[in-house]
Amino acid sequence: MDNFQFYSPTEFIFGKETENQAGEMVKKYGGTKVLIHYGSGSAVKSGLIDHVKASLEKSGIAYTELGGVQPNPRDTLIYKGIELCRKENVDFILSVGGGSCIDSSKAIALGVPYDGDFWDFYGTGKTVEKALPVGTVLTIAAAGSEGSGASVVTKEEGSFKRDVGSDLLRPRFSILNPELTCSLPAYQTACGATDIMAHIFERYFTNTQEVEVTDRLCEALLMTMIKETPRVIADPGNYEARANIMWAGTVAHNDIVGVGRSQDWNSHKIEHELSALYDCAHGAGLAVIMPSWMEFVYKHDIMRFAQMAVRVWGCEMNFVNPELTAIEGIQCFRNFLSCIGMPVNFEQLGAKEEDIPKLVDKLGLGDGKTGGFVELSSDDVTEIFRIAAHTAL
Amino acid sequence: MDNFQFYSPTEFIFGKETENQAGEMVKKYGGTKVLIHYGSGSAVKSGLIDHVKASLEKSGIAYTELGGVQPNPRDTLIYKGIELCRKENVDFILSVGGGSCIDSSKAIALGVPYDGDFWDFYGTGKTVEKALPVGTVLTIAAAGSEGSGASVVTKEEGSFKRDVGSDLLRPRFSILNPELTCSLPAYQTACGATDIMAHIFERYFTNTQEVEVTDRLCEALLMTMIKETPRVIADPGNYEARANIMWAGTVAHNDIVGVGRSQDWNSHKIEHELSALYDCAHGAGLAVIMPSWMEFVYKHDIMRFAQMAVRVWGCEMNFVNPELTAIEGIQCFRNFLSCIGMPVNFEQLGAKEEDIPKLVDKLGLGDGKTGGFVELSSDDVTEIFRIAAHTAL
Repeated sequence: MDNFQFYSPTEFIFGKETENQAGEMVKKYGGTKVLIHYGSGSAVKSGLIDHVKASLEKSGIAYTELGGVQPNPRDTLIYKGIELCRKENVDFILSVGGGSCIDSSKAIALGVPYDGDFWDFYGTGKTVEKALPVGTVLTIAAAGSEGSGASVVTKEEGSFKRDVGSDLLRPRFSILNPELTCSLPAYQTACGATDIMAHIFERYFTNTQEVEVTDRLCEALLMTMIKETPRVIADPGNYEARANIMWAGTVAHNDIVGVGRSQDWNSHKIEHELSALYDCAHGAGLAVIMPSWMEFVYKHDIMRFAQMAVRVWGCEMNFVNPELTAIEGIQCFRNFLSCIGMPVNFEQLGAKEEDIPKLVDKLGLGDGKTGGFVELSSDDVTEIFRIAAHTAL
Repeated sequence: MDNFQFYSPTEFIFGKETENQAGEMVKKYGGTKVLIHYGSGSAVKSGLIDHVKASLEKSGIAYTELGGVQPNPRDTLIYKGIELCRKENVDFILSVGGGSCIDSSKAIALGVPYDGDFWDFYGTGKTVEKALPVGTVLTIAAAGSEGSGASVVTKEEGSFKRDVGSDLLRPRFSILNPELTCSLPAYQTACGATDIMAHIFERYFTNTQEVEVTDRLCEALLMTMIKETPRVIADPGNYEARANIMWAGTVAHNDIVGVGRSQDWNSHKIEHELSALYDCAHGAGLAVIMPSWMEFVYKHDIMRFAQMAVRVWGCEMNFVNPELTAIEGIQCFRNFLSCIGMPVNFEQLGAKEEDIPKLVDKLGLGDGKTGGFVELSSDDVTEIFRIAAHTAL
């Protein structure tokens, strides 16, 4: 096991009707003037924003608001948010939505006290030294941003999707009410589930030896997703299944199951180019890329893939030919994704094989490689895209 | 799943030589004058206290010290610590040791700013409103106190063992270096492992339905302990196995695997009377009590015990008679404890059957019951002690 630091100070408030605690939580964490940041309408139409406003008013907290966050959140709205916060002396960002909304909120939070362009921090490794506090009311179990210090946003000009990470961006509190996810359409639900599973796999495929505890925790979360996801696809209003998925989504990404081990994240990196170019859902892009990535890399550690097949998917170990077990596990994953309604190849996603050179070019590896479970060159990424383009189910 | 709040703000620094970061961590969390609190000598003899002092000096942090914490930490030393801290204007407690040392440190931390007797908070539910910050350098994987807000101490006069819990008692940071546990004798190692497993089982046996995610996470930690504990008993210096156990011990008790579900804790309550009366190791007492408790209660939910047997211990499900599977799982647990050198009955522990009435009386249930997975009356506890007294292996 590698040395590590783990710090997850976010206070989680989980369960039914917990959105009504938004006001007291903002107060507890020192907010006096809030920006309510939200998405494209469902949070308004469902009455959630009204509940949140009522809760803030009850606690005597002033607020202003900015809606309109889109999936793959844009820099353009973030600039507006930063300007608004400065003008209105906002000292707390309350994000009401899913991962895109939270990531947009974090970008605003670091942008407000910064003299230059907030984009300076994205994809550059520049250290965040100050940020407004952020709280969240989560409406989609997926990104894990409610418990992480990460933010991923898209620069409209040129469609660059880049990320930043800092403990200062960890939400002070996150309110998780599974009821709020019960109205989510099946497709978005499945995209969220895929993202959660991908967050676990990015940690699971490691070159660090002897990480039994985090291996087992990752497997526990994956088995939970495998059990609960088909239940909510079949029965969207199932609170219990929604609740299990929601907590799994948070634990999957606050890194408690990923510490002490090298991680991969190349499927995420590669996928970002798909969602930046086609504006597809991140989870859908991952459903296409991740099994293709697995097919490309599994020979690097056949026994680890066999372990996934046996422990997570319940395959029988082929002791004569473990490679067959490894391959079976990957196929189980792809079949599962297809069953929950995810695309698993370029055609289903709406991506085009002729765009592959452009996608690879955008990734910007040049003659270099991107590190991870297996280091990937531009040629390797091209091959992964090709597998994704040619996958038939 | 039940509604819940989860908050675990402790910063964990994990890995080799991390004790040398003690000074910078105290500084980061605002300490200027530290009480180094430790145990009965091994932390001194091993040179660990010297390393910690050197680290504090390097960061320009002043300190005073108080050794002598015993297992089942005593109120008498805590009073001394409180007095010392007040006299020396200590503003940070640095606990270098295992669970007893950390629990003693937490008691001092809440006692220093409190006008009355620190014991007022123990076993009474009185709310902690202020406490000095605590940091830890952990030397035994067991109690989980390094990541929890709980403290259990013993009042010498009358041998009362009582607990308190508060988010204010959560350590600001905990330094976990598995190397420090490599010199631990087999018996203490096994006691620690038993305590960790008990912390998981206390959460696992629940009446809350539909808690797949926390069930799976609990099972993940148990399987880790089942794999790694015999390794360190056979090979005490095995860093990797020690590391897996150490992180499992922390995750087992910061409650991330126990949220959203009713928990039990009666085995802990019952065991506290054993260690208070006989001054035995807490883990040893648990090894005697917990399987006996399981035998007494398993009929309350045979399928949950069968689930444990199948998922954790790898038993085959007996679909004709699930009760046999449930019983097999309990027997697997007891066999495991015996294999790692734990006592599993009164005689092996040094407890006496004739003391049972005294033990039950001390628990103080009277005509009442203690709530949990199964509510227990004094008669029920008597029966559990009798099972423990008569267990043969």
